[in-house]
Amino acid sequence: MQVPNFNNVLEAKIRIEPLIHHTTVHTSNIINEITGCSLFFKCENFQRAGAFKFRGASNAVFALSSEEAERGVATHSSGNHAQALALAAKLRGIPSYVVMPNNSKKVKIDAVQSYGAKIIFCEPTLASREETLEKVVEETNAVFIHPYNNPFVISGQGTAALELINQIEQLDYIITPVGGGGLLSGTLLTINTLSKNTKVIGAEPEGADDAKKSLQTGAIVPSINPKTIADGLLTSLGTITFEIIKNYVYDIITVSDEAIIKAMRLIWERMKIIVEPSSAITLGLLLEKKIDLKNQRIGLILSGGNVDLDHLPW
Amino acid sequence: MQVPNFNNVLEAKIRIEPLIHHTTVHTSNIINEITGCSLFFKCENFQRAGAFKFRGASNAVFALSSEEAERGVATHSSGNHAQALALAAKLRGIPSYVVMPNNSKKVKIDAVQSYGAKIIFCEPTLASREETLEKVVEETNAVFIHPYNNPFVISGQGTAALELINQIEQLDYIITPVGGGGLLSGTLLTINTLSKNTKVIGAEPEGADDAKKSLQTGAIVPSINPKTIADGLLTSLGTITFEIIKNYVYDIITVSDEAIIKAMRLIWERMKIIVEPSSAITLGLLLEKKIDLKNQRIGLILSGGNVDLDHLPW
Repeated sequence: MQVPNFNNVLEAKIRIEPLIHHTTVHTSNIINEITGCSLFFKCENFQRAGAFKFRGASNAVFALSSEEAERGVATHSSGNHAQALALAAKLRGIPSYVVMPNNSKKVKIDAVQSYGAKIIFCEPTLASREETLEKVVEETNAVFIHPYNNPFVISGQGTAALELINQIEQLDYIITPVGGGGLLSGTLLTINTLSKNTKVIGAEPEGADDAKKSLQTGAIVPSINPKTIADGLLTSLGTITFEIIKNYVYDIITVSDEAIIKAMRLIWERMKIIVEPSSAITLGLLLEKKIDLKNQRIGLILSGGNVDLDHLPW
Repeated sequence: MQVPNFNNVLEAKIRIEPLIHHTTVHTSNIINEITGCSLFFKCENFQRAGAFKFRGASNAVFALSSEEAERGVATHSSGNHAQALALAAKLRGIPSYVVMPNNSKKVKIDAVQSYGAKIIFCEPTLASREETLEKVVEETNAVFIHPYNNPFVISGQGTAALELINQIEQLDYIITPVGGGGLLSGTLLTINTLSKNTKVIGAEPEGADDAKKSLQTGAIVPSINPKTIADGLLTSLGTITFEIIKNYVYDIITVSDEAIIKAMRLIWERMKIIVEPSSAITLGLLLEKKIDLKNQRIGLILSGGNVDLDHLPW
């Protein structure tokens, strides 16, 4: 197991600098009033392909040797990683193969296809996913880029926090969503080196609280039958992400779907930006007040903005 | 009739500098590809109270003498000007009175109330509106701040283009929505002085094409029974705004509601920002290709983002 460190985040920053969007940080007087905190929203919903995932995917794709790259890249994902990897591969001019469940929404299929990926459908089970991916890799010889349990992906995700602390000084806390743990672990690599006084909290859906349980038990608890509107946060932690998270995270706190939806609507209405439920969970955590963060300066990483506008949760 | 000039825009800039948000300019590779242009979206949906209107309203409110200000301010509006004026008055610590039709949507009433304005309801006719306002002004002695036909309001709106041309150089065109003409005329004051090579186009709904007709006939044609989804663009031009527009505008081009909705959805989906139909009309104009703007550098002023999330047009 190759656990990345902050140097790898710096390497990622240099590597992906010309590719990524340097996303802005937004604030809202009204949401500050409501929460009693000073909030700084890092808008990764404005990232290319609509989510922070492009940071990690582009770092992984552009770190490949020419020989590796020629073979193309492959992954299984129905979500933001698939789009991000497809775009990164397109920019490097290499083929990409994406295994998606055959019940994926058309809007997601279209998005991945629009970046030029070849889609291979599988049954909507983990077993079929992995089996199909294996077959694709065997046939094409493509390099598998895991959505989060990959040192280059993690290092790439860590560049979001690196930008954030250069944009906003003296944050008391940073809150990120946690699904597979790529964003959270990348953030921890950066913050544990550059801003040790900033506490990093992972926000996890109540109905998918495997990361919280993993932290409590000290071993990865798999995510079984997760139920939440935050469809980007369904997966289990990986061995690498868990290794970093268990060492450095301040806490993982669960958030109800009700608070996630309330937060999402608040962000849409007051900040005029589109975020997906998996992003809004960070503000949802503050709305539920399970931890007293009054008067603190808090960075929230809004992870993405890919939603189906025909099916909003209100 | 007191027609403002560019010096008044500069005065406005200095006056409202500490009050307003300096809004960012967004770009989208994909929308550039679709339109064949280089587009720069000035995000006034991120302005305080959710629209450019706060620029003009705050300029008008803070330009009042202490004696005038003490009396408070009044207006009739069911839209963004009402919220903007209420917020500006709140920041100056003076009362505001807003006459609204009794069939206004709850979401709009709530927004105006949340900024501390006193709302006076009237019948949903222009006659009742004006009559009620007159009565309010008589009773309270408040200063009437017209939504657009007011030199301070126009000068304030001109600061959006002033920011834009400092953010993005060498624009070939700027497109703004046109309703009463406040934003368009303010933009013209700035551009005609500082960037004479930039052509300014007003985008107007097909079903509310009074400005286009006014420009053609050389006299203000009133907006009678306008029908469009762009509910911020229903009003007639004012004497002051028309005076500026007829002298300096490059063209006024109409846009179908179909193109407005298509553009709105494209902006939401691809740029992850929330804009109202009255903003999306600027991109709608390009989608309809009634004028050849291929390969041009174009600034689009996204005027606001106040929409009812329970009633989206798709």
